Amino acid sequence: MSTESLENIFIENLVAGLPRSPMQVNRLQQCDAELVRLTGDPDQILAITTDSLVEEIDTGLYESPWLIGWMIVMANLSDLAAVGASPLGIVISEVLPREFQDVVELQRGIRDACIASEVCVLGGDTNFADRLIVTACAVGTVRGSAYLSRQGCVPGDVLYSSGPLGSGNAFALARFMKDFPPEGEYRPTARIREGKALIGVASACMDTSDGLFATLDQLTRVNHVGFELDAGWESALDPGAKAMADGAGIPPWLMLAGEHGEFELVFTVPQERESALLEKGLSLNRKFYRLGKVTETPVVTLPVYGAIAEIDTGRIRNLPGETGGNVERYLHELLGIDASYRRKLTDL
Amino acid sequence: MSTESLENIFIENLVAGLPRSPMQVNRLQQCDAELVRLTGDPDQILAITTDSLVEEIDTGLYESPWLIGWMIVMANLSDLAAVGASPLGIVISEVLPREFQDVVELQRGIRDACIASEVCVLGGDTNFADRLIVTACAVGTVRGSAYLSRQGCVPGDVLYSSGPLGSGNAFALARFMKDFPPEGEYRPTARIREGKALIGVASACMDTSDGLFATLDQLTRVNHVGFELDAGWESALDPGAKAMADGAGIPPWLMLAGEHGEFELVFTVPQERESALLEKGLSLNRKFYRLGKVTETPVVTLPVYGAIAEIDTGRIRNLPGETGGNVERYLHELLGIDASYRRKLTDL
Repeated sequence: MSTESLENIFIENLVAGLPRSPMQVNRLQQCDAELVRLTGDPDQILAITTDSLVEEIDTGLYESPWLIGWMIVMANLSDLAAVGASPLGIVISEVLPREFQDVVELQRGIRDACIASEVCVLGGDTNFADRLIVTACAVGTVRGSAYLSRQGCVPGDVLYSSGPLGSGNAFALARFMKDFPPEGEYRPTARIREGKALIGVASACMDTSDGLFATLDQLTRVNHVGFELDAGWESALDPGAKAMADGAGIPPWLMLAGEHGEFELVFTVPQERESALLEKGLSLNRKFYRLGKVTETPVVTLPVYGAIAEIDTGRIRNLPGETGGNVERYLHELLGIDASYRRKLTDL
Repeated sequence: MSTESLENIFIENLVAGLPRSPMQVNRLQQCDAELVRLTGDPDQILAITTDSLVEEIDTGLYESPWLIGWMIVMANLSDLAAVGASPLGIVISEVLPREFQDVVELQRGIRDACIASEVCVLGGDTNFADRLIVTACAVGTVRGSAYLSRQGCVPGDVLYSSGPLGSGNAFALARFMKDFPPEGEYRPTARIREGKALIGVASACMDTSDGLFATLDQLTRVNHVGFELDAGWESALDPGAKAMADGAGIPPWLMLAGEHGEFELVFTVPQERESALLEKGLSLNRKFYRLGKVTETPVVTLPVYGAIAEIDTGRIRNLPGETGGNVERYLHELLGIDASYRRKLTDL
């Protein structure tokens, strides 16, 4: 088992004293969005999630107000997608700098993301401070037990992603190396249609908002299983991310390890449903990427440097907290992890 | 008509480019919470609202982490109360200072408010920054057209509040005069039961989160009516607020004008339903305060200094924005408004 997740421990402590609703369907950390049964029609379940953009703005990762608007919508809708919910709408709370010139661009990003996702802003709140922070809450519905959760995969299930991986970390790397492509190129889209299509097909699902390895770390803990990535991970690597890694001399697998994800869905499918999945992909005109399979041993392994590395996903997931928003230290630590694997594997 | 509301203009501009959901029941600014029809059962409507605590923390108004936790829950539930919704739950996004020692107290305030309101936290998000900001989103349900809105009162209707007024501004005054009572004494409670009981009785309803006059200002604009406060306002004044005003040499009516409200419901009732209201009050064991009546002329009048003052509610409502978080300037301006009324009325 990899290093304990400090995030999980923190959240467990945070909610320890809070009463839990008898109407809540999911357990703590079990789903990307919270599920609560509606009174009146017990078969109708509300999916609700909230997500803020803070560190992404503070570190300078998101500078364009348009992108901030786009991302606050997509980050929240992505959590609805990961439970297979049909969105009802979104509310947005904006903390705006008093002299903020870019509110029109921020709103344009929100609008564009809403139009792209066929979702409307229902309302919001605005406050003023010395910095920009945006928070949203997205709501949707699922029916009965027809929803996706992080829990449910078993050894032998096959691991997939809803799209290529690594573009989020490529974007971050480009931003911090000060040699970045126009921000317009990073424009993740919440996989709402895909999430709905995966109901009844996927055995577990979670979005990659924090990068692939943080996602696998959580799936490992929730399901008490492991993941064996195969050579498929290299084909799933976003071509731009691959080129960026090669150009910067960064090991390509780190594009899956960084904490800035691409908001794809990562999900598992029992082998007997792989053909059903293929059909769903065809009907959605979307290529799903086969990444590996679910194993009994609760570790994540990756073929790299001509051998099989056991990835300490907990350590990778803890790094952002441990480096406290210091981007250089974070990257340094990530490269250190890679170096230790490389040493160990090439010594064998 | 009083001065234009800069807040309304700002919000109208903010949402100008955003598409509106065909499932949304309420128009912009029409309700304290947004109402959206659920698919499946068109008679079931989701009420959703979001509110952040930013300026209250920045100015030092809320210092106790327990109170911040309590208030983020109550402020959001109060908006649900003002549409008469039955709460489903709340999600909370916390932006925590990295060295924040008081997270246990913050959570205890959240828990106490949830227990007092019989509402549960469904989930949330945590981020780290150099300051504390909390945002919540509360959801509930109403059925069919059985909800309260800000719109619907007509001249002749009677104006009420769900409880005594002024405690929010008394608290703020005490805090900023550095001679304050223990914070425990300010503990507003969302009027959820009252809101539900007012369905079918009240013709319009809004909470006093921004103080009575800001509330009346908005009701004036939404309904194209005015309000004639009568001597009842003095009996509705919270005794502690009255004592505080007298002790500080502040005109008591300013306890209704300040922007830090008490989270009561202010509502109108057609005269023929006043006896029904009385019964509701008895069954809830709650005293409703009669404040005045709805008039045709779109102004708010208040009996003060032995005459009738026409209150520029728009100006009062714009003051917080105009003084940009500067508490001393804000109080100075409020006292200036009082002085101008006093001069004018005693000159007559």
